[in-house]
Formats: sequence, structure tokens, C-alpha cells
Amino acid sequence: MAVYTHLGAEDLARLMEHYDVGRLVSFKGIAEGVSNSNWLLETTQGRFILTMYERRIETADLPFFLGLLDHLSAGGCPVPRTIHDRDGAAWRMVDGKAVALIEFLPGLSPSAPTPGQARAVGSALAQIHLAARDFPQSRTSTLEPGDTLDILKQCGAAALGTIDPDLPPILETGEAIVHEWPRALPRSIIHSDLFPDNVLMLGDRVTGMIDFYFACTGSMAYDLAVTHAAWCFDGTGARCDRALGRALIEGYETLRPLGHDERAALPLLAEGACLRFIASRAQDWLDTPDDALVHRKDPMDFVRRLEFYRASGQSAFA
Amino acid sequence: MAVYTHLGAEDLARLMEHYDVGRLVSFKGIAEGVSNSNWLLETTQGRFILTMYERRIETADLPFFLGLLDHLSAGGCPVPRTIHDRDGAAWRMVDGKAVALIEFLPGLSPSAPTPGQARAVGSALAQIHLAARDFPQSRTSTLEPGDTLDILKQCGAAALGTIDPDLPPILETGEAIVHEWPRALPRSIIHSDLFPDNVLMLGDRVTGMIDFYFACTGSMAYDLAVTHAAWCFDGTGARCDRALGRALIEGYETLRPLGHDERAALPLLAEGACLRFIASRAQDWLDTPDDALVHRKDPMDFVRRLEFYRASGQSAFA
Repeated sequence: MAVYTHLGAEDLARLMEHYDVGRLVSFKGIAEGVSNSNWLLETTQGRFILTMYERRIETADLPFFLGLLDHLSAGGCPVPRTIHDRDGAAWRMVDGKAVALIEFLPGLSPSAPTPGQARAVGSALAQIHLAARDFPQSRTSTLEPGDTLDILKQCGAAALGTIDPDLPPILETGEAIVHEWPRALPRSIIHSDLFPDNVLMLGDRVTGMIDFYFACTGSMAYDLAVTHAAWCFDGTGARCDRALGRALIEGYETLRPLGHDERAALPLLAEGACLRFIASRAQDWLDTPDDALVHRKDPMDFVRRLEFYRASGQSAFA
Repeated sequence: MAVYTHLGAEDLARLMEHYDVGRLVSFKGIAEGVSNSNWLLETTQGRFILTMYERRIETADLPFFLGLLDHLSAGGCPVPRTIHDRDGAAWRMVDGKAVALIEFLPGLSPSAPTPGQARAVGSALAQIHLAARDFPQSRTSTLEPGDTLDILKQCGAAALGTIDPDLPPILETGEAIVHEWPRALPRSIIHSDLFPDNVLMLGDRVTGMIDFYFACTGSMAYDLAVTHAAWCFDGTGARCDRALGRALIEGYETLRPLGHDERAALPLLAEGACLRFIASRAQDWLDTPDDALVHRKDPMDFVRRLEFYRASGQSAFA
């Protein structure tokens, strides 16, 4: 949640001259994004989000991320288009950092989603899976359970125990998940991080899916499982709202019915999704000083979800 | 630069129902303000800034601050109106904190102002001084040189010396400023903090003056001196752009010519302005841990300005 780089009005006005979007009349740095800086810009022709890639995202990945937005948008998905510059480039360099201009989409991220909203999100997720199937680029996931278990191992049982004494046993659970992980499910490009923050809605309509910076080639059912884990629990992961989960999957299946193998794999896929968020949160927790002003997210919120999926099996989704 | 409080879409949508502004369609937390949280909201009827007062500002002062915006706006000044709720209230309480809905104004804050822009800002400053003369409320300044010298004394010479060895002598300079401070100059309500960040412009036109949370009853010429110190130097205070300063004062005098006593007092008033920013920056510096992620502003940037005003006298403004 930050703007890491100062860009002055004159810098931005000069940057905008490279685009056919009219003259800059307003901009505000916005408190969104953890690995990039974002501004909401208004020009005489409309509104746009300017993203400056600060870290984590390799410039080499930008043709994939930005090309994907264009591909999905052209395919009718509620995804912001990339605005190309006058030379056709999808991004430019400013002060040695890549920046991209992206269409602004209205909408609100629900913090207490309804079944009607979950249904719409499921359907929008299926829509991008189908539209992405003929996207000509691919990107290897770096967040498979094997990768995320490695992160937890690097943290080490002792350090994990300082976060919560109930955290270290996750290493053993992780081994089991990696061992059983299904590798032959139908694939497409997946969003991989479709938390409510990354969805804009007006009422029950999805007006935008954003923040595709974890998108990669992967199992579509895994993406649905990530979305289930992200949408269908209270904040601490103590309680699953099964009605919300059913609505999500129903919405998905209106456009793309799950195969038998995908349906059977859902509990394990959801466990893998939880393992990933446990690992990233544990790593961030240990990397963040105790007295930092930054709010640390508790990995235990996803340990509770994982335990729920492991205990419930198929009934988690029924 | 922050959003301190999380407000969800549903919270905000519910809040908006208390105002006659249409339905919420978008909101973004914006990276502005240090003592409050701000969101840029879009409804079906327009755009607004929602401010949540987190600290420093006493609710008891809100009738003054918000009433002043309405008074100045009604007087034709480029200042955002306060949007009152359906019951006529200028602010409401949310989770125990006061919030106000304020008109959104377009415009860009210049980071490298031109003389044409400085002239417009001078004129807009005179406009608020004139329009505020019949504002029925008053507010005592807490930032007179006596007050700010007290802050520096509380920091102590030893601690000031840890920031910069050239900082402690400011205590002696401060005593001289307090001793000589003029107390009978013409008064009105003054902005007191009109840095470029707090001015929105389109070309040479001022479209908005914002952030009146230091506004108080005070000497109008002091406000002009604050603005001179804020606009007419490079970032470190090493170089004064006298042409910019002349344009600022010329612009001011198109609407409100300075009296002989005000003109004579300008160097000392500017020194007092510098003293205030030295004190607030020194205090923040000492209050902020060395390893905090927050960018600390160097008080020496205003020591250099102060030295310039002290050395130049009237020629600083010629």
C-alpha cells in the first residue's frame, strides 16, 4: 500500500505526451499495490491507472502481463486494456523503471461478498480461462506447492515457531500436498490471486478483474480453488461460508463445467493454495521488523483454511 | 502519505447514503495527508474527497475548517466546498472518527513553478485573505515564533546537534526573531501552509487551494512570507529564485497592495516562517526512528532559507 516513487506534475504531463490520451488535468497517488506504485490519472479524455513497476516484476515478464490484459479485454472479459504509446509500446521507461498506462475501470471490491457476487466472480473467472486458451504466450508458475514448501523450509521450523507454535507442523502437511499434487489437470492462463481486492463490482456485476501479476500457465481448477480460499472464509479463516463457495463454483460451471478429475482434486488444490499464502505470509512476517509500521498478515489465517479443507474433503464444496 | 484506516466498499456505500450525492461506483485510498486518511470517491453524480481525521485535528476545530471552506467557496475562491449530509451536518462520525466529504477539484500541483504560476498563486492568496475578512469564526495560531521556539527548546541543543551540527545555533536566532516579531500587522484568516502540494493548477490558473488544517487568525503578510519560503527556493533551500518571489508578491498586490509596515516586515516574517518549519521538521526527525521507512524532511533546508532571508533583508524580495 504505497507510492514508492515521487513523480511530479511536470514529469507526468511530459510522460502523457507520449500517449494519445489528451492532456493531464489531475493525478493522485493511490494506496494500492505492494510491489509497484500506482497513480490515478485524469486527462481531458478519460481516466487511467499509471503503474510503475518497483520490484519483483521483471521487465521480461511485462509482454506477458500487458499482452494478456489486451488479449482478455479483446475477448470481452472485464479486464482493463493496456494503453499503448504513440509508437505502439505497451510500456515505457521512466527513471530506469518500467511504467504502463492502464484503462481505469469503475467498481467496488466487496469486503462481505454475497452469493450473487460470488456467482458472478466464478463466471468471470471461467471467462478468462476460456478467453486465455488461445493467448500465444506462456509463463511458468513459480508458486507450485513444491516452490512454496521450499520457502517454508528456508524459513525453518524454529523461525516459523516464533510466529505461532502451531505453524511448524505445516512443513509435514506441505510434504504430503506436494506428494499428492495432481499434474495432469486441464490448463490455461490463470489469474492465481483473485482475492476480493482484485475484483471490481457494481452490484452483482463484475466490472473489472485487476492485478494479473501472478498470472501464469497453470491448472484452471487450481485457480478456482485459490478463489474459493480467498472469498469464502471470514478474515481469520475460522469459518467457511459454504453457500458462498457453492455459488462461486456454480457460477464457474455456467461457462466451464469442471471435469470429474478437477472436481475430485478440489480439496487438495485448495490445500495447495493455502500452503502458498501461508508461505508468502510467513516469509513477509519474518522479513518485517516487529516495530515496523507495516501491517503483517497472519499466516495462521490460512493454516485454519488448510485444516478445514483437509478435514472436510469434498464436503467443503458441497 | 497514507491511509490509516481500512474502510470497505460496503462501509463507504452506507456512509454515502447519508449524502445526496448519488450511488458510490468507485473509490481509491489516496497517498496524501499525514494526519488524516483520504479517499477519492466517485458516485453516479460526481467525484469527491472523503477525509477521515485521524489525529492532531480536534473535532472542536472542524466547524472552523469546514465552515471556512464553505465561506471561501461561496466568496468565489478556488477552494473545495464541504458537502453537507442530508441533515445539514458538515461532518459525521465513523468508527469514532470524524469524516468530511469534500468537493473534488481538478488540477496539478506544480513541482517547478513558473513566474506565471507564482503570480496566480499570489493573487489567489490575496483573494482568500479578502474573502475571509467577514468569516465569523476565529482560531488562534499555535505556530507563532514563540511557540515554535519552544518546540526547538524542548528538542534541546544536544539532540538538535545530532541532526546537524549547524542546527543548534538556531535557538539563538529564534530568540532574536521572537524578540523583534511584529504584532500589529493587518490580520485575517490565513492558510499558513500554502506549499505547492496544497495548490492545484491548470496551466497558470489556480483551480484549487486545499488542506486548510493550519488555517488560523493571523497576519496576512506572514501568510505571504510563508508562501514565499515555500515556493521560491530549490528543494534544499540553497538557492532563491527572486523572479519567482517578485511574481508571487506582484500577484498578491494586484488584489491587495501591502502596507508599508507589511512590506518592511517581510524579511522577519519569512524568518519566522522558516523557524516554524525548522521546528516541525526537527521534532519529526527526532520522533522518527532512524530505520523507519518514512522519509524524514531535513530541517536544514529551512535553516538555509532562514540564513538567506537574514542576510538579504529587503533585497530578498526585490
